[in-house]
Amino acid sequence: MNTGRVILLGAGPGDLDLLTRKAVSALLRADVLLLDELVDPAIAELAPKARVLRVGKRGGCRSTPQDFIQRLMRRHALQGRTVVRVKGGEALLFGRAGEEIAFLEAAGIEVELVNGISAGLAAAASLGMSLTHREHCHGVSFVTAHAHDGGRPDWRALAAARTTLVIYMGMQRIGEVAAALGEHLPAATPAAVVQWASTPRERRLVATLGTLAAEAREAGFGSPAVILVGDAVGLARAQPAAASLPRPRHVRN
Amino acid sequence: MNTGRVILLGAGPGDLDLLTRKAVSALLRADVLLLDELVDPAIAELAPKARVLRVGKRGGCRSTPQDFIQRLMRRHALQGRTVVRVKGGEALLFGRAGEEIAFLEAAGIEVELVNGISAGLAAAASLGMSLTHREHCHGVSFVTAHAHDGGRPDWRALAAARTTLVIYMGMQRIGEVAAALGEHLPAATPAAVVQWASTPRERRLVATLGTLAAEAREAGFGSPAVILVGDAVGLARAQPAAASLPRPRHVRN
Repeated sequence: MNTGRVILLGAGPGDLDLLTRKAVSALLRADVLLLDELVDPAIAELAPKARVLRVGKRGGCRSTPQDFIQRLMRRHALQGRTVVRVKGGEALLFGRAGEEIAFLEAAGIEVELVNGISAGLAAAASLGMSLTHREHCHGVSFVTAHAHDGGRPDWRALAAARTTLVIYMGMQRIGEVAAALGEHLPAATPAAVVQWASTPRERRLVATLGTLAAEAREAGFGSPAVILVGDAVGLARAQPAAASLPRPRHVRN
Repeated sequence: MNTGRVILLGAGPGDLDLLTRKAVSALLRADVLLLDELVDPAIAELAPKARVLRVGKRGGCRSTPQDFIQRLMRRHALQGRTVVRVKGGEALLFGRAGEEIAFLEAAGIEVELVNGISAGLAAAASLGMSLTHREHCHGVSFVTAHAHDGGRPDWRALAAARTTLVIYMGMQRIGEVAAALGEHLPAATPAAVVQWASTPRERRLVATLGTLAAEAREAGFGSPAVILVGDAVGLARAQPAAASLPRPRHVRN
């Protein structure tokens, strides 16, 4: 029997045209496809050989436990299959790739990593802005709104670093995040939210750090979205007027 | 006459299989292709209609002035052509996309942005590591080794932010960068260099902040490369033995 392998694949933020050619090749080879909740199920059409397993949250259900996903990948790989674990965005930014690589390699399974476009970069493309405009910042930092240990990122240090901040998983606490950053950055600092970047459902909001949370709440922005903060965001394109209208509740997500 | 447009396109770090499907479509539409120095000229085969203009540094020559590149794009777009400006890596990380967007939009030219895989992300894939392992960091920061104003990034703030650091354009001053960071991080902090990420010439070095500069110099590492620093780098795969051998001088780049 052949030895199987696991490919951790970044599928990009939604638009399947943001898949790389390498990702498309990997999908063609897949025997088993593990799909994260945020990935467009239409991606399965690119993996004609594959048995498709959904492993994300669906509706009101809890998410599939990480341990279960890891054991599932291990089992199929040890049975000689090519397992493609499809992750939203970039496999190596957030998500649990680190734990998965360690777990699988400890079982002697070869792990291949295929890059993807992260939501923060797709958001910048939609906003028509560079994340690292050299007249406005020293680079860019990608963080989550909450730390592993239940604490918060060190907003003071992040603000002092003068990088554009791209904040993932922050919509549920956008008021808290904006207030914490507001202790270290002027209220007039440009800020934006992009929800469902790169998809037909995409919505953008450009505001300031001081007004962002209220404007986002009023316009009904929710997850999945990235929050961008920093002087470089001042060059973002204003959103089309329609984008700031609240969506009817039944199509919100 | 039709109105032209400019597409700023991230071509990824080298391997043309890291092009997105969206990038491939854009190349097919190109009438004029402007190629940066670090982009594989074979990309022109994907743009069969296009006249190809090289606008990067070649050999010992100076780089093409930014003003000239911008006026060149404007001229061809105003003549109704679809101009694709191909940038290494991700168009919206470093490079001069911000200035180019502002210049072209001021001339009434539509600018489209197509994301690509940045070298730092391809480097992480080669090292088999997540850039944001939640047990080791709060996120990831992408910076250049020197600031626009001739100063340095605020290494103290970056170190305090507890993000994995991915440093671009740092090989010419790797000793200075490592020493500056060493004032704020332990010498034992894991660190790595990946040169020519994703290409057949790729080389990797995994070390510590205290030893990185000397080891990289000894092994003959040079540009283009990214430097990675942070506890998450401790999970990087050790490089294959051959990768630490100096290359013969005549093939170094």
